[in-house]
Amino acid sequence: MNLSDLAAKGAEPVGALLSLTLAPPADGEEPGAWEEAFITGIEAAGESYGLPLLGGDTIALPAGAPRVLGLTAIGRSINGVPSRSGGKPGDELWLVGAIGDAMAGLALLETDAEATGPLVDIYRRPVPQLAAGRALAPLAHAMMDVSDGLLLDADRLAGASGCSATIDLDSLPLSAAFRDARGVTRDARLFAATGGDDYALLAAISSERAQAVRQSLPSGTIFTRVGTLGSGEGLSLVAGGKPVELPETLGHEHRAT
Amino acid sequence: MNLSDLAAKGAEPVGALLSLTLAPPADGEEPGAWEEAFITGIEAAGESYGLPLLGGDTIALPAGAPRVLGLTAIGRSINGVPSRSGGKPGDELWLVGAIGDAMAGLALLETDAEATGPLVDIYRRPVPQLAAGRALAPLAHAMMDVSDGLLLDADRLAGASGCSATIDLDSLPLSAAFRDARGVTRDARLFAATGGDDYALLAAISSERAQAVRQSLPSGTIFTRVGTLGSGEGLSLVAGGKPVELPETLGHEHRAT
Repeated sequence: MNLSDLAAKGAEPVGALLSLTLAPPADGEEPGAWEEAFITGIEAAGESYGLPLLGGDTIALPAGAPRVLGLTAIGRSINGVPSRSGGKPGDELWLVGAIGDAMAGLALLETDAEATGPLVDIYRRPVPQLAAGRALAPLAHAMMDVSDGLLLDADRLAGASGCSATIDLDSLPLSAAFRDARGVTRDARLFAATGGDDYALLAAISSERAQAVRQSLPSGTIFTRVGTLGSGEGLSLVAGGKPVELPETLGHEHRAT
Repeated sequence: MNLSDLAAKGAEPVGALLSLTLAPPADGEEPGAWEEAFITGIEAAGESYGLPLLGGDTIALPAGAPRVLGLTAIGRSINGVPSRSGGKPGDELWLVGAIGDAMAGLALLETDAEATGPLVDIYRRPVPQLAAGRALAPLAHAMMDVSDGLLLDADRLAGASGCSATIDLDSLPLSAAFRDARGVTRDARLFAATGGDDYALLAAISSERAQAVRQSLPSGTIFTRVGTLGSGEGLSLVAGGKPVELPETLGHEHRAT
């Protein structure tokens, strides 16, 4: 998640600060075993993406307290930092990466906690679009990562930009694994468009520039036009060239209890 | 504490990231009252020191969970970043700021929770030595802030620098309020040298350069030579030109339970 945030700002990773709570182990738990496994995983991920653990903080809590983990990723942007608010009417909305895989993976795990396969892998280890983010940063009018569902996040980008947005359900980039697992029905497409945890990038790009942008992306990047920004406000869906009613929930809203 | 860490690296404040846990209020507690007061205080402190709240994270926890707060301060160093390890034999150890006030304030509060006055103020609202830190950064061989007690932190700086350190108890910068409250006996000086929470700066500076350094500091800065680095290792104390036995505890050691 942190690395996807950096990608959405066109930043390259510099390092991470980790804060974590330490409490006496629960009965039967080996002291420090969880923490050791966690730090090993963080270090492996950091090594993969060039995000060394630079420091942080530890906090002692009493036994039985919940664990609280905080990771701050620091990045460096060289070619400008796109906001959510720079989109303009007439811009095209492009996605880097496929959507729906993570939620399809989670659905498999909810049916069978031992499930494996590419969808489960993507749910468990999303891949941040760092190289594409850096390439897009100087060229996109607006950019963000899609973590809470394409429809919800597109609505946020359009709202911040003072535009309306239209998403074409037929255009969604669905992976082969997703199609195998869930099909390509209207419901499957809506599932993919509202599911969240995708860590794709959503960029608003002027239509004149879109093909040039494609050339600047790393080869093999999944790069798909999924809609447009317009004047006015609000989100619309189309499929087969016709309007489609919005689903009740556009994505995953975070709420503090 | 965060701002003192920036001061010790010669950095100017850029902004802060705050993570905090949110849990349902305890019985009889007004929802969000504590959080609102805390954020108001953080914002006031940030405004004083040019450290705007840039972002952060919130985490929902169940009722009864302890609050966990994490603040990351981001700073910018222009003239070099002094480490703890650059001190050299023959360097003089200089302090920016007085020591002992905060612990004297805490001692007053432990006797009378309603106590007021300058020592209590300094305990509750330590002042980070930001301007002095920026001035010293390019000139000191090594620097750190004194947060756990002068003797402990001087021992750490000397150890990191591969040197021994000698501290002269007679030289300690004690404020008028401290002298009024605790006197200037050997015990009072040891109390000040081991107390912690001072947020003074400790710098190792070549003896040829010390007077020039003084000229570069903001006028009114309390700047005191408290000792020297030597070859070898370990910490020594002197008073009246004679060796003094080290106290059992050099300062406040943090231990995770």
